[in-house]
This record gives sequence, C-alpha cells and structure tokens, in this order.
Amino acid sequence: MHTLPYDGLALASLDEQLLQPGIKGLPLTEALRQGAIGVQGWNILHADTSFPVAVLKTSALRHNLDWMRRFCARYGVTLAPHGKTTMSPQLFGAQLANGAWAITLANAHQIQVAHRFGVRRVLLANQLVAPSDVKAVLALLRGDPDFECIVLADSMTGVARLAEAVACQPLARPLPVLVELGLAGKRAGCRTLEAALTVARAIATAPGLTLAGFEGYEGLLVTEDRGADLAAVGAFLAHLVALVRTADDEGLFAGAEIVLTAGGSTYFDLVARGFQEVSGLSRPLRAVLRSGCYLTSDHGTYERMIGELNEREGESDGLRPALEVWSMVQSRPEPTLAILTMGKRDVSHDADLPRPLFYHRPGPGMPHALPAQSLIVKLNDQHAYLRLPDGHPLCSELAVGDLVACGISHPCTTFDKWRLLLGVDDDYHVRGVYNTLF
Amino acid sequence: MHTLPYDGLALASLDEQLLQPGIKGLPLTEALRQGAIGVQGWNILHADTSFPVAVLKTSALRHNLDWMRRFCARYGVTLAPHGKTTMSPQLFGAQLANGAWAITLANAHQIQVAHRFGVRRVLLANQLVAPSDVKAVLALLRGDPDFECIVLADSMTGVARLAEAVACQPLARPLPVLVELGLAGKRAGCRTLEAALTVARAIATAPGLTLAGFEGYEGLLVTEDRGADLAAVGAFLAHLVALVRTADDEGLFAGAEIVLTAGGSTYFDLVARGFQEVSGLSRPLRAVLRSGCYLTSDHGTYERMIGELNEREGESDGLRPALEVWSMVQSRPEPTLAILTMGKRDVSHDADLPRPLFYHRPGPGMPHALPAQSLIVKLNDQHAYLRLPDGHPLCSELAVGDLVACGISHPCTTFDKWRLLLGVDDDYHVRGVYNTLF
Repeated sequence: MHTLPYDGLALASLDEQLLQPGIKGLPLTEALRQGAIGVQGWNILHADTSFPVAVLKTSALRHNLDWMRRFCARYGVTLAPHGKTTMSPQLFGAQLANGAWAITLANAHQIQVAHRFGVRRVLLANQLVAPSDVKAVLALLRGDPDFECIVLADSMTGVARLAEAVACQPLARPLPVLVELGLAGKRAGCRTLEAALTVARAIATAPGLTLAGFEGYEGLLVTEDRGADLAAVGAFLAHLVALVRTADDEGLFAGAEIVLTAGGSTYFDLVARGFQEVSGLSRPLRAVLRSGCYLTSDHGTYERMIGELNEREGESDGLRPALEVWSMVQSRPEPTLAILTMGKRDVSHDADLPRPLFYHRPGPGMPHALPAQSLIVKLNDQHAYLRLPDGHPLCSELAVGDLVACGISHPCTTFDKWRLLLGVDDDYHVRGVYNTLF
Repeated sequence: MHTLPYDGLALASLDEQLLQPGIKGLPLTEALRQGAIGVQGWNILHADTSFPVAVLKTSALRHNLDWMRRFCARYGVTLAPHGKTTMSPQLFGAQLANGAWAITLANAHQIQVAHRFGVRRVLLANQLVAPSDVKAVLALLRGDPDFECIVLADSMTGVARLAEAVACQPLARPLPVLVELGLAGKRAGCRTLEAALTVARAIATAPGLTLAGFEGYEGLLVTEDRGADLAAVGAFLAHLVALVRTADDEGLFAGAEIVLTAGGSTYFDLVARGFQEVSGLSRPLRAVLRSGCYLTSDHGTYERMIGELNEREGESDGLRPALEVWSMVQSRPEPTLAILTMGKRDVSHDADLPRPLFYHRPGPGMPHALPAQSLIVKLNDQHAYLRLPDGHPLCSELAVGDLVACGISHPCTTFDKWRLLLGVDDDYHVRGVYNTLF
C-alpha cells in the first residue's frame, strides 16, 4: 500500500487500471486502460457509451469548487467536505486542491480508502466502536506520522473504549476527539449540554486522548417548516458555541486550536454565520463546515434547498447541478409511456424519483428539454417508467433508441450505484473518469 | 479475458485477488488474498469483522438450492434464475451446479460479467437497444461458439434494430429472440396478442434472427388483493400459452424446442403449474422459470410471499432467508433508541425497512432474539435508528458495542450495496466469500 500526492483531477494509480468489459456505462468489448477513456472520442449524445451512464459535468464541478472556496473565505470558515457523498479519490483531490482542510468521512473503511489515495487529514463524523475499526484507524495513525484523524464521542462508554484502544496501541500524539452534541429524538450525540461537558471532561483527562472541540449536525433539523427550522438551527448552534466557551473556561482544550464543526448541505450558510461571531477564546477557533453535496448539488432536494440558501445569501449564481444519468428508451408500449434502461440500481430513489430533463435522438445537435409535465412515475430494479403528457407531440415522436437525461435528488445515493462516472464537457464529450470506492 | 469452468462455490480468479484495506465488512489492516478469508478464524459473534457486514448463511443457501431443484423437477420446468439479484459469480456457479439451465440477466454489462466467469447460456430478459450494447453481445457470440444468448423484442422497431445489427456483424447461428408479452399500464412488452404475433412473424422472417418463443413477467401483477392477483396471473399465463400455440400453428418456430418463460419470485408456482399443462406442440416445450430471489429469500416481502406459496403448495419446509446484515450499536442516546452503524448504503430500503432480528454482546454464546416490537424506524446514508419497546429490560441492557442482526426485504437492493458478502455457518464462523460485480 502506498500513498500518492494529490494532483488535481487525475490519480495515476487508478488511470493505470485495466478495465474489463462489464462495467456499467462503458462500451467495452475488450479491456481498456482507464486513462485512455478521455481520448476515445466518445460522446453521450452520439450514444457512444453504454446506457445507463452517469455523467458529471466538469464545468459545473469547477463552478461549485470555486463557489465554495469563495464562500468559505468570505465567512472565515474551513471546509472539510463529507467524502461519503462521492467516495471518489479524484473528487477528494479536487476538493483538497481547492482549499479543503480535511475530508470528512463516515466510517473506518472510508478512512482507509481516503488514506490510500493520499488524504492527510480526516474528520470522522461518527463514533468509532467496532474493535477492528478502531484498530484499523490506529494502525494508519501509527504507520503514518503525517496522517491526522479526528473522531467523535458522545458517551462515557465511547470515551472509555477509545482510551482503552489507545492504551493497547499507543500513538505518538494523543488522538483528537470531538464531543458530539445531538438532538432529542434524532441521531447520535449527547442530549444535554451537561452530558456533553461530562464527556468533554472525560476526554480531557483520558490518557492518549485530547479534546479537540465540539461537533453537531444541524441537517437533522430540516422539516417542511422553514421558519421553525431557522430558529431551531440558531438555537442548536448557540448550544455548540456555549459548549466551546464553557470547555475553554474550564481549560479542557490542550491543542493549538479549537475545532467547532457543523454544516450539512442545506443550512451551511447559517452555520458559517453562526460560527463567524465566536471570538475571545483562549486559542484560535477553527470553524469547520462539512457539506458533501455542494460539489454536485442535484435536481431535487438540494436544488430546492440551495435555491433558498441563494435567497438568504443574495446569491445570483449559486451551486449548479453537475450529475445526470442518461438512459435509453427501451420500449414504447403505450403512447404516454416510455420504458428506460435505468432503475433503482442506477439512480437515487430515497428522496425523490429522478427528474426527466432532456431527450435526444443519437447524433449531432444538442438535446431538447422534455415537457415540464414529463415524470418518472416508477422505478424497478433495472427499469424506469417515463410518463409523457397526454396529447403532447412527443407521445408520437419519442422512439426506441432515443436518449433521455435525468437529474437526481440526493447525490449520495446515486454515487454509490456507480463504480465510475464519466466527466463530460458542455457538449457531452467524455473527457475523463471519476472512480468511486464504496 | 478468459473463461473458467464453474466449480461450485469457488472461482479461482477471484480468490487470487489481493484485497486492500477499505472494503466494507472486512477487518483488514493490510492486503489479504481473498481465498484466505475463510481460514482467518473470523466469527461475526466475536466481532472479528468490521461492521456493518453482510452475511449469507450457507446452510440456507444449500437448502434453497436443493428445494428449487426438487421443485423444478416436480413440475418438469427449467430454471434460468435471474442473476441481476446477486450478480455474484460464485452464486451463479452454485445455481448452474444445481440444475439451472441458464442465467437470466438484465443488460449487456451483466452478460459480459457472466460470460467472463464462465456462464455459457444467458436469457436477456430485456430489449437490447443501445448500439454499444448490441455490439458487445454480438461480439461475445461471435468470439465464443459455445456461448448462447436469447434476447427479447416487443416492437417492430426492436426487431429491425436487431436484424440490422446482426446484418452488420453476422453470426454463425441465428440470434434467438423471444417476444415479450406485456400488460396494460405496466412495463415493456406487447399490449395485445395480435401485436405480439406481428412481432413474432417479423422475427421469424428476419434474416439472422430466429423466433425462440415467448416471454412475460407475471410479477408485475402483484397487488394487495391476492385473489385478484391469482386470477390475473392465470389469465396472463393463458395468453402466453395461446401465443405459443398460434405461433406454432403458423409454423413460426424453427429451432429444436420452443421456449416459454415467466416466473418471478412471488408466483413461480402458478407459472410452473400453468406451463405444465401445455402439450401437443410441434416440438418440445422448454418452460423456464426466472426467479432470482428464491436463492436467499428475505425477512420481508419475499418471506410473506413465499409463506403464501408454501400454503398453496402444501410445503412445510420452504425457502429460508439466507441474508443478514450485522451492525454495531454506535450510540445509545435515549433509553428506547439505539443508533446502528449501517444505513441506506448497506441495506435495502425500497420495499420495507430492515427487520431487527437478534442482538449479541461480542463473545461466546449465540445471539438473542430482539423483542418483537423492536423496529428500525429510519435510515440515513450511514446510520439506522433502532427503536426498542418502552419499558423493556433491553432499554437498559443494550450497550454501545453490542451487535444487532437485521433481515432485509428485497435481496436485489441489498446485494448491490456490497462488493462482497461473507459466507457463514450456523455458528457465524466466516467460511468464504461471495463477490458481486455490479
């Protein structure tokens, strides 16, 4: 196992892979070196690939990387984007090259993948509990003095388990731990400020551990009632800030800085504003946002949420959807029904069904927008049901072999359905590859 | 690319792989040859693996393979199990070694994977439309005279596209095509018998194609009203049989046998009975069932459906659930709430949420059943919310670090979330590996 420095959007070891026929989206009849994909001259609109195929529009990625770098600079906050969204080494590289301080991850195997591809700082936004997982992370830290990993704890049991593991596998430096503040009825995390402080004190005094700061996830507060959400997020952030102040007053922090982190992909503007106001601590505050979905956004949940964020921020050119799944019309059994060659295995279906965007008859020219009333009404494992508006000319025009592009809702559950996504320019020429390692 | 003969539950090329740390479920801190997994002495109940981990109980697989072989023999039907369920070469091998006549698949890349691992006959239960996909399948047929692939058509356009492709890449033998009969308002397939016969006649006269038979999928008729379903399935099967008779009377079949295929995992008994009665054709009938989920069944949809099938068949020892996902309690933030280290990325959530089965404190002994009112009430990408019955002793007993086993509903959407599943014996010793290639 060797690590490689990040070099932007390409990582040599992956590009050297010989890809065998049988990978979704790729039109292979014989093995092909991955690095050669971008020079095959494939174009989605010419149906050169297999279908379905997942594509990332590189201009939108570029825009979103720049947008988020500027946003963080404006508020003086740090980005540790959640890598579980994409689990793509090339995208981790692009995020780090565009100012990300760390990659946030969800579990030990994700950390192992990130480390293997050269990520040098990880924020594990979870408790580390399984003995084999603790051992795996400690092994990385022991084997690589340049590697940093910050973990969470939300209970005395969790602290005791970590301290015990570190005692068995001592580290050169103490393991930095954030206390997770939770929300009643929601996910993990201490339910009261007092409980969080008790855990913080235990970390501060545990041999081999050091209190790095506090963590919360305001994304659990998203409801249909935006006004109530904004108030609840404000209160939650105030609790996190209060915890930092109290712990600082008690002298529980020993490191060079204090980490305070929250921020999913819906309310990260509120987090940035909330954390911006904190000052007067004994050492510098590092306010960390963890949005994962900013990178690709989507055509569903996050498009709506980011539209609202744009309004709050007075932003006219916000994050853009970068991810599309293209499939082919496989059957036209009824005038208003087209069956597409994609299904639950290819697109997210947990937040919303995919949104049909364009259709195109393979060949020159650019795709046409589908009528607004077109809907994906159902997905099977390997099929989608596209319902066209009754009486629309497309009911007689759309044919077997035509291409249909869909936007998705919730990137995390589309990325994990693909071993690789193709990078395309605005004309849908295939320019490169993004691997995922789930 | 080379092919290997199947040898039961192990395929040499996969076992030779060097697995790097960072694969879900595996407790690796350094690379391990896959074939060595079964001799590591790992036991799920001792928390030797990483969590979550997906396990297949080999005794249940063995039982289900035997059960289905006997079932098919009793009704004189042939099995071409749907391989899209598992996409696992080892499981394809086990199915073929237990009497399967072919593997059914959903698209061209699945065919490429199956062919690479030695499957010699494939039933593609879909139209083949994308040029690159047609080319890929024809390339396999041209390159391997022992490989057979039967495809579907449901339109004159589809037939014309296939005939055109075969004209460009001639095959030594004509490409066998089944006409797909569909259902109004449902998925692909001809909507009337007359339309199906028109397509059949076109296939019979198209150069390079041969009419192999008829196909339908009665699984689309499953509703909440069982009585109505049984009648509708009966009528649909009668239509398929009528199509075969008419096409045979017209002399449209040219092969040595006639293929008639239907049968998902809910009503395959009705299909077997319905097809059993067909006789008096000009050549032998090959009645083919395509169930994919029989192999592992589940603890949800299919458990219920198979329970009903058992009643219809007078079966006292029917198909058994073989697939479990084990995770660890990561946080116990409230008396009735445990947060588990698994989420949407690890278990099916399209049919039902996972069903909590057992809990176990890592170490000796066997797991205990969870109280019946325990429920997984919510999944995030990487977390599950286990709600315990209020006031139950387990509310104070279940601790961070305890193991929880869940059954799943709909195996297809759990298999595709794992690169490999571990084979375990009844004591949860890890005995082997099942790769998936999605």
